[in-house]
Amino acid sequence: MLFSGIDILDENLNHLKSQYVGVVEDKIEYIGSEKPEKSYGEEYDGTGKLLMAGLYNAHTHSPMNLLRGYAENLTLHDWLHEKVFPFEAKLTGDDIYNGTMLAVAEMLRFGTVSFTDMYYMGEEIYRAVAESGIKCNFSYGVTCFDDSAYSDLRVYKESQKLIENCHNAENGRFKVDLSIHGEYTSTPRVVAAVAEHAARENVNIHIHLSESQDEQEGCKERNGKTPARYFYDLGVFGMPTTAAHCVWLEDDDFDILRENGVTVAACPVSNLKLASGFSRVDKMIRGGMKVAIGTDSAASNNNLNLFKDIHLFSILYKCTSGNPAVITPKQALTAATTVGASAQGRQDSGMLKVGAKADLIVLDISLPHMMPVHDMLNNLVFATQGSDVCLTMVDGKVLYKDGVYLSLDIERVVYNAQKSTQIILAML
Amino acid sequence: MLFSGIDILDENLNHLKSQYVGVVEDKIEYIGSEKPEKSYGEEYDGTGKLLMAGLYNAHTHSPMNLLRGYAENLTLHDWLHEKVFPFEAKLTGDDIYNGTMLAVAEMLRFGTVSFTDMYYMGEEIYRAVAESGIKCNFSYGVTCFDDSAYSDLRVYKESQKLIENCHNAENGRFKVDLSIHGEYTSTPRVVAAVAEHAARENVNIHIHLSESQDEQEGCKERNGKTPARYFYDLGVFGMPTTAAHCVWLEDDDFDILRENGVTVAACPVSNLKLASGFSRVDKMIRGGMKVAIGTDSAASNNNLNLFKDIHLFSILYKCTSGNPAVITPKQALTAATTVGASAQGRQDSGMLKVGAKADLIVLDISLPHMMPVHDMLNNLVFATQGSDVCLTMVDGKVLYKDGVYLSLDIERVVYNAQKSTQIILAML
Repeated sequence: MLFSGIDILDENLNHLKSQYVGVVEDKIEYIGSEKPEKSYGEEYDGTGKLLMAGLYNAHTHSPMNLLRGYAENLTLHDWLHEKVFPFEAKLTGDDIYNGTMLAVAEMLRFGTVSFTDMYYMGEEIYRAVAESGIKCNFSYGVTCFDDSAYSDLRVYKESQKLIENCHNAENGRFKVDLSIHGEYTSTPRVVAAVAEHAARENVNIHIHLSESQDEQEGCKERNGKTPARYFYDLGVFGMPTTAAHCVWLEDDDFDILRENGVTVAACPVSNLKLASGFSRVDKMIRGGMKVAIGTDSAASNNNLNLFKDIHLFSILYKCTSGNPAVITPKQALTAATTVGASAQGRQDSGMLKVGAKADLIVLDISLPHMMPVHDMLNNLVFATQGSDVCLTMVDGKVLYKDGVYLSLDIERVVYNAQKSTQIILAML
Repeated sequence: MLFSGIDILDENLNHLKSQYVGVVEDKIEYIGSEKPEKSYGEEYDGTGKLLMAGLYNAHTHSPMNLLRGYAENLTLHDWLHEKVFPFEAKLTGDDIYNGTMLAVAEMLRFGTVSFTDMYYMGEEIYRAVAESGIKCNFSYGVTCFDDSAYSDLRVYKESQKLIENCHNAENGRFKVDLSIHGEYTSTPRVVAAVAEHAARENVNIHIHLSESQDEQEGCKERNGKTPARYFYDLGVFGMPTTAAHCVWLEDDDFDILRENGVTVAACPVSNLKLASGFSRVDKMIRGGMKVAIGTDSAASNNNLNLFKDIHLFSILYKCTSGNPAVITPKQALTAATTVGASAQGRQDSGMLKVGAKADLIVLDISLPHMMPVHDMLNNLVFATQGSDVCLTMVDGKVLYKDGVYLSLDIERVVYNAQKSTQIILAML
């Protein structure tokens, strides 16, 4: 495929006008201002459009799309115990698959090419990813107070089976991470065992970290140290780790995460909606930490539209820091693309560069709400709507274009998600 | 026009399925679950759609759409003095008109039926409003340190002329308010004279109030009282007043505004982006104050998409108050519709009710990001995108439908706005 006469954001996020970008199989082969002599097959007219790296959602729980709007305006305790946990207890494998397919449809429509997921029944997530063509790093969210030998635990066996059967499957689109749900939901022995397991299998780690003040203070009471220090001491950061939220980090915690190359998955929409608090993303970025962006689940966002989170990421920390100059558009877009891809172990992705994976999106930049164009990067973070995405390509395959899904039957996806929801509600 | 088999939000924001809504001229004549016997002419198939009151943008500066993305990531001082003021100094009447038309196009596309505007060259704003069919309360933003007799001032003469020529023109679509830009940009004598002028002409007042900490502290130094007390003492709140921002209100200020029926125009996106601070909207609503929602201008938002502000309004104050139960979807939607309409002196608008003005929007509620539907109100504030608007009707006239503008030539609007911008930039 040849994108022809199209504006682009290049690998340094410079805005270049009227370029040509050629894709062969799953890779970008050509970028230039001259039309290439070689034929790339289908030609895409880029008039009024911008081509950029697709978005990487660094933290979500995709099956929870079934819970969108189900439990709202409640305290965290009531939200979890009265609503979320009872609903989740009823989920079958088909429900997990149906919820994930709904999530994938939403992500593709709003320009996300890959997502870092933490849930359970990984084989169902794999099924949705394999069918739909999106990319995913999946991990079982280990919550375990059973101090039996780790290798006897069901979650170990399930993770190990998924690693053996599906890690790097689908041309590398599906990767298996290991996960500890949080400090407060497992024992130190389980945490250390998961860390060892990840090192042995050479896979990434995904955790919730310092999301709420309760968690932060509780951890210090239980362990005499912060969650970041606790995970570090148990060896978790020996493998590349994505730590979601990081709202309540304390001074040493910033150093621990930076020194260990941990990627923070900032989730600004979720943090506000659940009243978790304000993370210090400006300080993280100033200190050279890796920061990516996640939506969290549709139960706490309530969209998987990363452009909404990019927007909030771009304005919120200006206000919390009292400095409108912090968080540049380039920092926000880098977080949502290159940093997110790298955190997933996809160093060849997340940028418009010859040789990189063709995980690309096209935005309509001709609409009234994107005019005038003083600076494209400013418009992209402050004015772009997720709905401006008119094409989403993953591994060189067009999966969404102008309202049409090429790899899934959207009517069936919506119907199945509604049916799963109704069946669960009828049981509650 | 008959909306047929369509979900609605009724006047109490109850979600009713499959209703019929008949519009005659500029009013809603019929709402019911039975198809009316009378013919209403064109029938709109409401399958998969929701009809609700259109949105009221309670605070903006529409011509500033020309500055979208022009001055970003700067301190307030540099933003104003290095960028915004020099640009604005070059604006001609045609530029004001072109910027407003671009703003109107954006507002209609995202479901806004009426906006409260503060700027200058009101006759150009009137021209844009008259042509496009949208509604507007316009006021000159008085900034005046000249203590000559108010009736000798140019701004008095311009406002008076606009009141005489255009107030309640276009079937009441265009209203003229009077404005004091802010405490720090006029003398007390001018402020008192504007208040008297509004009382004499029986028009509403629009002000900026307590937007920044500098403004709040500066006012107390200059006047020995808060801005709210200052305006109250000068008689400003004798007429229905919209006070934009209200970020730094102090305890007595809440009482002053509530007792005087002042409507607060909360501008959450702008407040974050300019690092103005966090307003206490949860406290305002709990105390029975009137709170509407404004985008502020495209220079500080950078959209005039009120759904983005509704979303942030619905989540931000949960976090600032530490209580995820505050700000219900009903409160947020009421703020963006009924309260906004009422603040503009449009008590017959902002709700789906027989006899009310037919200022209505239709949303596509069948899209993947709006599924499933556990609770429509939750979806509307947490998951709806502005782009879900598929029809915008003002005074019974369809102005936007499925990507098509019925009252303006969108290509010309975008072209003219770009041209104005280029000419100004070439002069700087």
